[in-house]
Amino acid sequence: MKLGLINPNTSPEMTAAMTGAAEEVTSSGTELVALTASDGPASIDGYVEDLAGANAVVALAHEHGSTLDGLVIGCFGDPGLAAARELLQVPVAGAAQAAMMAAACLGHRFSILTTLDSGVPLLENVVRHYGFQETCASVRAVGSDVATSCSDPELATPAFAAAGRRALTEDGAEVLCLGCAGLSELRPGLEHELGVPVVDAVPAAVSQAESLVRLGLRTSKSRGFRGPTSAALPEAGEPAAL
Amino acid sequence: MKLGLINPNTSPEMTAAMTGAAEEVTSSGTELVALTASDGPASIDGYVEDLAGANAVVALAHEHGSTLDGLVIGCFGDPGLAAARELLQVPVAGAAQAAMMAAACLGHRFSILTTLDSGVPLLENVVRHYGFQETCASVRAVGSDVATSCSDPELATPAFAAAGRRALTEDGAEVLCLGCAGLSELRPGLEHELGVPVVDAVPAAVSQAESLVRLGLRTSKSRGFRGPTSAALPEAGEPAAL
Amino acid sequence: MKLGLINPNTSPEMTAAMTGAAEEVTSSGTELVALTASDGPASIDGYVEDLAGANAVVALAHEHGSTLDGLVIGCFGDPGLAAARELLQVPVAGAAQAAMMAAACLGHRFSILTTLDSGVPLLENVVRHYGFQETCASVRAVGSDVATSCSDPELATPAFAAAGRRALTEDGAEVLCLGCAGLSELRPGLEHELGVPVVDAVPAAVSQAESLVRLGLRTSKSRGFRGPTSAALPEAGEPAAL
Amino acid sequence: MKLGLINPNTSPEMTAAMTGAAEEVTSSGTELVALTASDGPASIDGYVEDLAGANAVVALAHEHGSTLDGLVIGCFGDPGLAAARELLQVPVAGAAQAAMMAAACLGHRFSILTTLDSGVPLLENVVRHYGFQETCASVRAVGSDVATSCSDPELATPAFAAAGRRALTEDGAEVLCLGCAGLSELRPGLEHELGVPVVDAVPAAVSQAESLVRLGLRTSKSRGFRGPTSAALPEAGEPAAL
Amino acid sequence: MKLGLINPNTSPEMTAAMTGAAEEVTSSGTELVALTASDGPASIDGYVEDLAGANAVVALAHEHGSTLDGLVIGCFGDPGLAAARELLQVPVAGAAQAAMMAAACLGHRFSILTTLDSGVPLLENVVRHYGFQETCASVRAVGSDVATSCSDPELATPAFAAAGRRALTEDGAEVLCLGCAGLSELRPGLEHELGVPVVDAVPAAVSQAESLVRLGLRTSKSRGFRGPTSAALPEAGEPAAL
Amino acid sequence: MKLGLINPNTSPEMTAAMTGAAEEVTSSGTELVALTASDGPASIDGYVEDLAGANAVVALAHEHGSTLDGLVIGCFGDPGLAAARELLQVPVAGAAQAAMMAAACLGHRFSILTTLDSGVPLLENVVRHYGFQETCASVRAVGSDVATSCSDPELATPAFAAAGRRALTEDGAEVLCLGCAGLSELRPGLEHELGVPVVDAVPAAVSQAESLVRLGLRTSKSRGFRGPTSAALPEAGEPAAL
Repeated sequence: MKLGLINPNTSPEMTAAMTGAAEEVTSSGTELVALTASDGPASIDGYVEDLAGANAVVALAHEHGSTLDGLVIGCFGDPGLAAARELLQVPVAGAAQAAMMAAACLGHRFSILTTLDSGVPLLENVVRHYGFQETCASVRAVGSDVATSCSDPELATPAFAAAGRRALTEDGAEVLCLGCAGLSELRPGLEHELGVPVVDAVPAAVSQAESLVRLGLRTSKSRGFRGPTSAALPEAGEPAAL
Repeated sequence: MKLGLINPNTSPEMTAAMTGAAEEVTSSGTELVALTASDGPASIDGYVEDLAGANAVVALAHEHGSTLDGLVIGCFGDPGLAAARELLQVPVAGAAQAAMMAAACLGHRFSILTTLDSGVPLLENVVRHYGFQETCASVRAVGSDVATSCSDPELATPAFAAAGRRALTEDGAEVLCLGCAGLSELRPGLEHELGVPVVDAVPAAVSQAESLVRLGLRTSKSRGFRGPTSAALPEAGEPAAL
Repeated sequence: MKLGLINPNTSPEMTAAMTGAAEEVTSSGTELVALTASDGPASIDGYVEDLAGANAVVALAHEHGSTLDGLVIGCFGDPGLAAARELLQVPVAGAAQAAMMAAACLGHRFSILTTLDSGVPLLENVVRHYGFQETCASVRAVGSDVATSCSDPELATPAFAAAGRRALTEDGAEVLCLGCAGLSELRPGLEHELGVPVVDAVPAAVSQAESLVRLGLRTSKSRGFRGPTSAALPEAGEPAAL
Repeated sequence: MKLGLINPNTSPEMTAAMTGAAEEVTSSGTELVALTASDGPASIDGYVEDLAGANAVVALAHEHGSTLDGLVIGCFGDPGLAAARELLQVPVAGAAQAAMMAAACLGHRFSILTTLDSGVPLLENVVRHYGFQETCASVRAVGSDVATSCSDPELATPAFAAAGRRALTEDGAEVLCLGCAGLSELRPGLEHELGVPVVDAVPAAVSQAESLVRLGLRTSKSRGFRGPTSAALPEAGEPAAL
Repeated sequence: MKLGLINPNTSPEMTAAMTGAAEEVTSSGTELVALTASDGPASIDGYVEDLAGANAVVALAHEHGSTLDGLVIGCFGDPGLAAARELLQVPVAGAAQAAMMAAACLGHRFSILTTLDSGVPLLENVVRHYGFQETCASVRAVGSDVATSCSDPELATPAFAAAGRRALTEDGAEVLCLGCAGLSELRPGLEHELGVPVVDAVPAAVSQAESLVRLGLRTSKSRGFRGPTSAALPEAGEPAAL
Repeated sequence: MKLGLINPNTSPEMTAAMTGAAEEVTSSGTELVALTASDGPASIDGYVEDLAGANAVVALAHEHGSTLDGLVIGCFGDPGLAAARELLQVPVAGAAQAAMMAAACLGHRFSILTTLDSGVPLLENVVRHYGFQETCASVRAVGSDVATSCSDPELATPAFAAAGRRALTEDGAEVLCLGCAGLSELRPGLEHELGVPVVDAVPAAVSQAESLVRLGLRTSKSRGFRGPTSAALPEAGEPAAL
C-alpha cells in the first residue's frame, strides 16, 4: 500500500526526520510518500500557524489523494484532519489522535510533552476534541520552541525528562506522548530514563493508517465527511488559497 | 467604537444582509466596518470551506485589525476565531459562541437550526468546544443548503419552523439559534409561529463585541493567544496590531 | 431602556459601588434603577445568605419588574436568577454567568477570585451549573470576607493579586473574574500587576442585559421559566410583568 | 433517634401522606417529627415555589434542628438542602438525592416521573447537580400538577404508568423514581404494572437519614457547610424573611 | 432481615473485623451472615486480585443468595457487584458505592484514602463508573499495602492522617472515605485528628442494604441485570435465587 | 511476531471464525496463536459470563504470555483486559477498545450493534470506561443472542441491517461496530447495504496489537498495571480458580 505522510510545515529536515522514524515501523509492502508543505511556517506553534498547516494538508491531500491508499498528518495538533477526511475516501490518521489512542492502550492515564507553554491550550483543545479529557493526565511544556528542541535532541532531552518526571509523579501519568513531530530521537533516552512507554506520534499515526487500510476501512461519507462541493476545492496543483 | 464584521465567504449579498441585521442592534457611536472574503467559497457548508473561511478571517484580521476596536466573525461555525484572537489584542466575537451564550441566558436548553444535515457534526463539535453540550438540546438541519435558504427566506421559513417545532417538542429546547449567518429575515416569523425566542447569531456577536469593548476588556495575551511569531503572519498588509 | 440592578444584600455602600461601576459601561439612553434588598444580610457568603439574597431578588423583581426592560442580579452567586427568569418576561442577567461568559471569550481558561474559602464550593456549583467546568481553571479564595475586602480595596489588592498569580501560574488561567460584586476598584490594579484581563462581574452583567434587550430577546416562557402560579408570588406589589 | 421530616409546602394532607409512607420504613426506635411549612405555596412546581420551600426548610431547620438527630427534606427538588446542611451539624437527607442514590443501586439507569412538563428543567438541574446525568435516563412529566396527581392516585396511575413505560422502552430506564413527595400510593400499582422497582423518594430519604445517623456521621463543617454567620439566621420562632 | 456480608478475600481476620464494625450499625432484627472467600488472595490490591474477589462474590452469592434478604460486598473496589446484581433479585450493596454515596451527603467533595499507589487507577475507574468524578476530590494512597495497614492500625494512622490532611488542604475534600475494608479501627482517630467525617465503607454498605430491604426495593430484572442463563452459573450449590 | 488471540468463551467454532477473520488482516511475519477458554460458557452475554471470560483471559495470558509478543482479547466486552495488562509486559488489545478507536477515525460518531437488549448496559459501561460516551451515538441490540446470530449470518443480516439503519438515521451514527466477536461474515453485506464503514472488532484488535508491537511499545508498569503479587496468579498450567 501507498501512504502519504504530510509534514504540514516547510522544514525538509522535519520531513526527513519523521519519514525516517516512520519507515522503521511500516511493514514490508508499505510505501511512504513524504509530502512537505510548499509554503507556510517552518514550524507550527500556535493557531495561525496551525491554520497554515491545515491549508498545506488540504492542498497536498487534494493533489495526491487519488494516488494514495491512506494519509497521515505528521504534526501533533492534527491540522486539517477533518478537512482531509472530508476530502478523501481513504483513511486519514492524525499524529495526535493516533498517539493518544496508542497511549490509552498502555496505561491508565497519559501526559503529553510539548514545546512551548503557549501551545498547551491548543493541545488541551485537541485532547478534549477526541474525548481524552479523562485519560490525559496533563499537557506539559518544556519551555523551548519546536525548532530548538528538534535541532539538538541531546540538549533537549533533560528538559523533556524533567517535564515527563513531573507528569508521572504529580499528574498521575503512566505513559508519555511526544507532542511534536520532530522529536523521535528523544524517545529511547526518555524511555530509558523514566521507565515508562513513550509514544512517538508520527510512527503511531503511520501504523494506524496502515492498520485501517489493512482492515479495508474507509472514511464514512454518510454525513459530516460527505465531501465538499467542488467550489471548496483548491485548484489542482496550486497552493491552497490563503 | 469601530467594529469589524467579517463575512468569511465571498457573497456580497450575505455581507449586506448580516451588516443590515447587525446595524439594527448597535448603539449610536458604534461604526460597523463590513469586510468580505476576497476569495474562497460563496457559502460555508463543511470542513474545507470552514478552513477557507478561517483563512479569510486571518487575512482580514491581519489587514484591518490595527484600525479596529473589536472584531466579529459573521459565520455560525466561527471559522478562524482562535487564530483571530491570537492575532489581535482587541476582543473578537464569534457568531456561534455569542448566539449560544445569549440563548443560554433565555432558557434551560437551546437548539440550533442549520441548513444541511452534513453540517451537523461540525456544529456539534463547535457546541462541545464551547462547553455547551449539556445546554444544547440538539442541532437540527432543515435539509437545504445555505444559498437556497438565504435566497428565499419566505420559502425557507416552513422548513425552519418544522425543524424548530421538533426541537421544542422532542428535544426539550426552549430557545432556538439560527445556525447560519444569512437568515435574519426568518427570525420574526419563527418567533411568531413558535412562541419562543430565536437568536440571530451575527447581531448577537456584534452586540457581544460592543459589550466587551465597552467593558474595557481585551484578549488575554498570557498564554494560548499570546500571538504568532512573525513567520506565521500572512505577508500582505501591516503587522498585526499588538 | 431601563434596567433594574439588584443588590441582593442590604448594604447601601455596596449598591452605590456596583451602580457606579455599572454606569461607566452603559450606553447613553440606558437608565439604571438601583434596587437594594430591604432586609437580609449585609453581605452574602454562604448558602443561607444566598437564599436570603434570592428572596430579595424575587421580591424586588416582582415589585419592579413591570416597569423594567431588563434586570441584573448584582451578586456573583446569582441568587434567585432562575426564579427571576421565571417571574419576568424581560431578560435577566446574573453577575456570575455574565462574567464567566465574557471571560470565556478572552482566553482559554479563567479563574474566579473570591473572598472566603468556605464560599468556594458554592461557586464551584455555580460554575458547573452554567457548564463552565472545563473552562474554569479554578476558584481561589483570598481568605478575608466580603465586607473586609470591599471596605479597603487598597488593603485587599495584594491578597487578590497573590491569588490571581497562583491561578495564572499553577492552574492555567489566562483571565480572572472578580467573584464578588463590590470589588470594582481592585480591577485596574490587578490588570496592571498581573497583565491579564480581569472581568468585573456586575458591569459585565449590566452590559449583557443591555445587549439582550437591544437584540429584542426575552426569556423563553415555553417550559422551565413558564411562570409561577399566582399562589407562588410574594403578596406585596403588583402582579409580575407577564 | 429523632428525625425531622419537613414538608416544605403548607399542605397538611401532603405532610400526613409522606409521614405515613415514611413510618412504614423506619426501624423501631426512630421517631419521626413531622414539620410543615407555616406559609408559602400548597405545592411546589417551579423556581419561585422552590425558593419558598427552601425558606420553610431553613426556618424549620433553624427552629427544630437542635432537638433532632437528623433531618429529611420531603420534596423531590430538595429545596434548601445545602442551606440546611450549612445550618446543622446532624445529617440532612433530601428526597431527590436519596431516591436517585437508591435507584442507582438497582439498575443501570433510572428515570424520574414528575407532574408538569414545566418542572422538568428544574429536576434536570437537580440530576446534574448530584452528578447523575449519565445514570438518569430521563425526566418525564405526566402532564398534570402535583395537587391533582396527589388528590386522586387512582386517577393518576394510568398517566404515570404510561410515562414510566416510555421511560423503560424508549429511554433505557430500568428503575423509576416518583419525582414528587405525595405519590406513595401509586407505587405498588406501578411496580405491579411495569415490573420494575419504583422508588418512593421520601421514605428513601428518611431511611438514608436513619442510616447516616446510625453510622455516626455528621455533616462536614470544614468548608462549604461551615455554617452561616449569625446575621444570616432567621430570628428564632419567626418565619424566614421573604 | 438476613444480610449476607461477603469478604471477597480469604482472610478470616478481615472478615471478623468488617463484621464487627458492621454489627455496630445494624438495627435490631438484622442478622449478618459473614461469608469469606474459600480461595483466592488474602487481600485485594490489583486487577487480577479484584477478579479473584469477583469470583468469590459470584460463588458465594450463588450459594447463599436464596436464603438472604440482601447482600453486601465488603471490599472497596466492589468486585463482582454487577454480576451479583445480575444473579440475585434481592438488593446488593457495594462498599465503595455506598461509602461514596454517604460521603456525597456530608460535604461538597470527598477523597478516598487507599493503601498502595498502584491501586489508585482501579479506584479512579470505580469513581467514574458510579458517576462521582466531579464529587470525588482525589484518591490518595498512603504507600503501604492492605495487610500492613490492617495488621497494625495504630502504626497506620499517621500515614492515613497525613494523606487525609493533604486531601483536605490541597484537593478540596471535606469528607474522607476509607478505601479499604479492614480499616475500621482507624476511623475514630482520623475523625478526631482531622475534624471531618470519615466514612467506613463496609458499615455504610451494610446500612445501605438494610435500607434498601426496608424500602421493599429489589434489583431491576428488566434489562442489564436480567439474570444469566443457566450455562453461566457456577456448578456448585443450588440455582441462584430468581 | 507472535500474537495470542484469546476467545474467552469455549466455542471452537467462534475461535475458528475470529481467527480466520483476523488472519486476513495480519501482515506477513505475524503468527496468530489461537487460544480458547478451556471452561466457562459457550458465549458471553452478561456480567457473570463476562467474569467467566475474564477468568479465561487471565489463565491463558498467564500460561502463554511469556511466549507472545502481544495479546488480543477476542470478545467485544473486553473481559479481563485490565487484568491481562497487569499480568503482561507485552501490549494487550481488546476487541471493543480497538474497534471503537478505529471507528472514531472514520466518522463523527459510531454506533455499536449487539445481540441482546440485556447486553446494552454492559456495553454502555464499556463505552464510558474508554471515554467514548460523546463519540458513541448508541448501542443498539438486534434482539437475538450471540449463538443464533453467529450460527446463521444470512439469517442475522436483516436484523443487523435494520438496527444499523436506525443508528444512522435516528442516532446520528456515521460508522458501525459489530459488537460481538463472531459476526465477521455479516460485515460485507452490511457495508454494501448501508453504505457506511462497518468495523469488525477482532481484526481491528489484532491489527492494533500488531501496530503496538511494531511501534516497540509495551504496557506501562509504573502504576496501575504494575503487576500482581505472585499470590494473585493462577497456578501455572491450571485453569483459573473460579
